Amino acid sequence: MMPTKGYAVQDATEPLGPFSFERREVGEHDVLISILYCGVCHSDVHQVRNEWGGSIYPMVPGHEIVGRISKVGSQVTKFKEGDLAGVGCFVDSCRTCHSCKEGLEQYCEVHTASTYNGLEMDRKTPTYGGYSNQIVVDENYTLKVSEKLDLSRVAPLLCAGITTYSPLRQWKVGAGHKLGVVGLGGLGHMAVKLGASMGAEVTVLSTSPSKEADAKELGAHKFAVTRNPEHLKEYTNYFDFILDTVSAPHDLNLYLSLLRRDGTMILVGAPPEPAPVAGFSLISRRKRLVGSMIGGIPETQEMLDYCAENNIMSDVEVIPMAQINEAYERMLRSDVKYRFVIDMATL
Amino acid sequence: MMPTKGYAVQDATEPLGPFSFERREVGEHDVLISILYCGVCHSDVHQVRNEWGGSIYPMVPGHEIVGRISKVGSQVTKFKEGDLAGVGCFVDSCRTCHSCKEGLEQYCEVHTASTYNGLEMDRKTPTYGGYSNQIVVDENYTLKVSEKLDLSRVAPLLCAGITTYSPLRQWKVGAGHKLGVVGLGGLGHMAVKLGASMGAEVTVLSTSPSKEADAKELGAHKFAVTRNPEHLKEYTNYFDFILDTVSAPHDLNLYLSLLRRDGTMILVGAPPEPAPVAGFSLISRRKRLVGSMIGGIPETQEMLDYCAENNIMSDVEVIPMAQINEAYERMLRSDVKYRFVIDMATL
Repeated sequence: MMPTKGYAVQDATEPLGPFSFERREVGEHDVLISILYCGVCHSDVHQVRNEWGGSIYPMVPGHEIVGRISKVGSQVTKFKEGDLAGVGCFVDSCRTCHSCKEGLEQYCEVHTASTYNGLEMDRKTPTYGGYSNQIVVDENYTLKVSEKLDLSRVAPLLCAGITTYSPLRQWKVGAGHKLGVVGLGGLGHMAVKLGASMGAEVTVLSTSPSKEADAKELGAHKFAVTRNPEHLKEYTNYFDFILDTVSAPHDLNLYLSLLRRDGTMILVGAPPEPAPVAGFSLISRRKRLVGSMIGGIPETQEMLDYCAENNIMSDVEVIPMAQINEAYERMLRSDVKYRFVIDMATL
Repeated sequence: MMPTKGYAVQDATEPLGPFSFERREVGEHDVLISILYCGVCHSDVHQVRNEWGGSIYPMVPGHEIVGRISKVGSQVTKFKEGDLAGVGCFVDSCRTCHSCKEGLEQYCEVHTASTYNGLEMDRKTPTYGGYSNQIVVDENYTLKVSEKLDLSRVAPLLCAGITTYSPLRQWKVGAGHKLGVVGLGGLGHMAVKLGASMGAEVTVLSTSPSKEADAKELGAHKFAVTRNPEHLKEYTNYFDFILDTVSAPHDLNLYLSLLRRDGTMILVGAPPEPAPVAGFSLISRRKRLVGSMIGGIPETQEMLDYCAENNIMSDVEVIPMAQINEAYERMLRSDVKYRFVIDMATL
């Protein structure tokens, strides 16, 4: 076993603090990644504080990982020592079910080993995430990362990037489409960048008029204040797609009313409580309310390559490891543009 | 104007009774249809009793109309005197918007003139429906009806048939698909017949075990009792499509849990109150909750032709006009297999 340093919580009520633990030795198909940066996802807070239930402690969070490969197993073919690499929300799956065979490992019908707060495929060994100095991952669940981009700004692509990229691709969003983006946080700001890069007309739908300048700087073409019924009127039956990144409770019917006939609203942020949906708001113009969850390994690689090619990165605030508890508080106040990323050199 | 006999309600609390009114003269593009049969739709009761609000009285209900053409206007090209004809849920629309041009007049972006309890395109003249001896309709909103089928059993195709046919076609339901049908009433029994005829494996999802024999007689391959968690277990992540025809409040998340990854639940019956939808039940397997409302004129014709070709008709109980009030009560108790149809000769 390999001694590893990280930051962890011991239970749902304590702050994060230094933690020593062990990673498995590098197996035949594994790579060892020296972690350079790890993004801070909103779901880290939910899981640290056991807000979704079933949290496993001690917990080392972090599933937006980039680093450099420092060792490869004897059978590894995709990577060599010194390569950049990324790890997203999961590190293994059954590999044999329909979903795995289609490269949709996130929907594995047997078991997906989450990068942290999960169990390996033996269903016993807990997984520890990217708030740590190194991680051992099967090469098939490891992504290639371009040398071209700022690595600290690449890290959030591994969750926020793929979570928004995947549904935009699945629904073939592009030129000629009007895309609304609800929420301008870690996911939302990536949805704006990605949607605009794919040729869609992007409108940020926000409760805060103060975000207009930021939205446009990110690439949004329009900005609608959802608390202003007058302003919203012109967007009734307007959008082909609405990508809803908000995980706090909110009124879905309001946004559904902004879709045109055959329009699609895509949920990627899951509010904790079920939201009331009026059947008539779907029926009257044949609308669709759909979900999407991160993305599979092939599509995550495609997204990373696309971002490298199109110079798309997250807007981040890099923090030292020791500021993680403060960062959580600021994130809960939406006081970040738009993603905290931990510099692991500070560990 | 042409004196016309029908049955109407004068307000939301009275029973239906005989009513004399006038239809417009047959215009250049109109046909006059002598009504032979009119189906009794659940929505007739909702509108008669003003349960959706905004009802216009006096009201002559009925939008599942078949009859024989007794006069044609000078410019009519599609029909001649003596032809069978059908009229569904609407009798006019703007004809110029995108939806109308695509043959999706039910989603007209300007105004759809409902067959009854609506207003003509002048937004002033009330429309009166098929509980009457004759109706004048523009030929472009009139359907051709085959001589091959039992007309009393064709009438419900004009609403119950097209409402279920349209989404099955839109979502390309067919061989290799597992289709669940929720609710075994007027719409549900047509969904079973149509789904099976298109090659899907059809499962009726019902709260009442007593309906199993009926479901299978209609063509269902399987039957699942939704109140039995053990029975339902085998249907978890099972269906490609679920067509939900129930308009009473019910738990959508239960049915969403039965969809496989990328599965689609189609709402065609709109419960009066919004239903809670758990975002996670859509996100976790990339599921879709969609709506569909009746069908446009071209697709309604396609459906009628398809039913004639495949010998598909509604199962009906033919009643005399005078029994309509009793029929409403029985329909509300689900005491009908599966649609009441009024024999207009009894008017």
